[in-house]
Amino acid sequence: MERFEQTKMEILKKKDKSSIQGIDKPILNLCNLINSKKDYFTTSSCSGRIVLIKDMIKKGPGLFLFRTHEKTSFEELKKELEKAIKETRGTILFKQEPCLVTISTRNLETQRNLFEIARNNGWKKSGIVTTDKKFIFELISTENISLPIAKNSKILLTDEFLKILVEKSNFNLEKSWEKIKRLEKLIEKI
Amino acid sequence: MERFEQTKMEILKKKDKSSIQGIDKPILNLCNLINSKKDYFTTSSCSGRIVLIKDMIKKGPGLFLFRTHEKTSFEELKKELEKAIKETRGTILFKQEPCLVTISTRNLETQRNLFEIARNNGWKKSGIVTTDKKFIFELISTENISLPIAKNSKILLTDEFLKILVEKSNFNLEKSWEKIKRLEKLIEKI
Repeated sequence: MERFEQTKMEILKKKDKSSIQGIDKPILNLCNLINSKKDYFTTSSCSGRIVLIKDMIKKGPGLFLFRTHEKTSFEELKKELEKAIKETRGTILFKQEPCLVTISTRNLETQRNLFEIARNNGWKKSGIVTTDKKFIFELISTENISLPIAKNSKILLTDEFLKILVEKSNFNLEKSWEKIKRLEKLIEKI
Repeated sequence: MERFEQTKMEILKKKDKSSIQGIDKPILNLCNLINSKKDYFTTSSCSGRIVLIKDMIKKGPGLFLFRTHEKTSFEELKKELEKAIKETRGTILFKQEPCLVTISTRNLETQRNLFEIARNNGWKKSGIVTTDKKFIFELISTENISLPIAKNSKILLTDEFLKILVEKSNFNLEKSWEKIKRLEKLIEKI
């Protein structure tokens, strides 16, 4: 068995163990599809998410105050914000982050092949992370929102704005999910 | 002369022509330094910026309503916003984007060398964009803000929030400039 196959087997075994929390649903099919191809396997993924995090220079424990891979509502966001400002007086950031998937591939040729397909189909921030002898690349989409939302235990924004923020974030998540579906179709053909 | 040297010479000549508008000042030294190294040349760069843009699905002409590579002030932002909402009734996005530099390099080894240095020094979103026979990579930092700021010719945010937004954006630009300075020192040693 080649080294690539061996690493793939080991990584996929590990994943099974952690799948109680699991890969988030909208990207599960894409990951399975990539893993079914002989030249590729996924090492991490996210279908897009909405989070509240502490604005810290160095990332540390307790960074996340709220995290969801699903669409949110004004009511949910408001409730989570009220909770979060009790937890910290520091600045809290709201972030809607795009879908991403990190892929390990057999060689330079198979890497370039999938990388090009993705880049040309809306995974615009994709990049190759080449470390020593491994061929790893990240496919990342573009939808993103990021702003300070609370400070000194006060919410900085009006309810009216929070509603627009929720609407736009949900729209962006949908766009991420569409891109995932489109990439699935393209990878099926490989 | 090798092909790499020839392309480098041609690209750098072209740059001179466009330098009336010029490379933005905080990243000029870094670009010059990279271009002075025999194995590298820059193909594009940005020291970080603050922009107001139309929220369009397809990017088209007239996208930018305001663009600066310098720190902004509440007064300037407010003035530009008032102008922008007269120009469009659609959603306007505020974005503070991090510093970035795109670099062409001689071969895989020199590419990996500089890429690793940058990744380990805060250029966390860096990626390699390998096309066919060229070795090109982008170094991108992480500071970023992105949110809807106006809609239906109305500013969505309070003056109080706009002031926090300006403060945070200016802080992020400074962080980008520090990263540029730090990278300069590391590249000097190559």
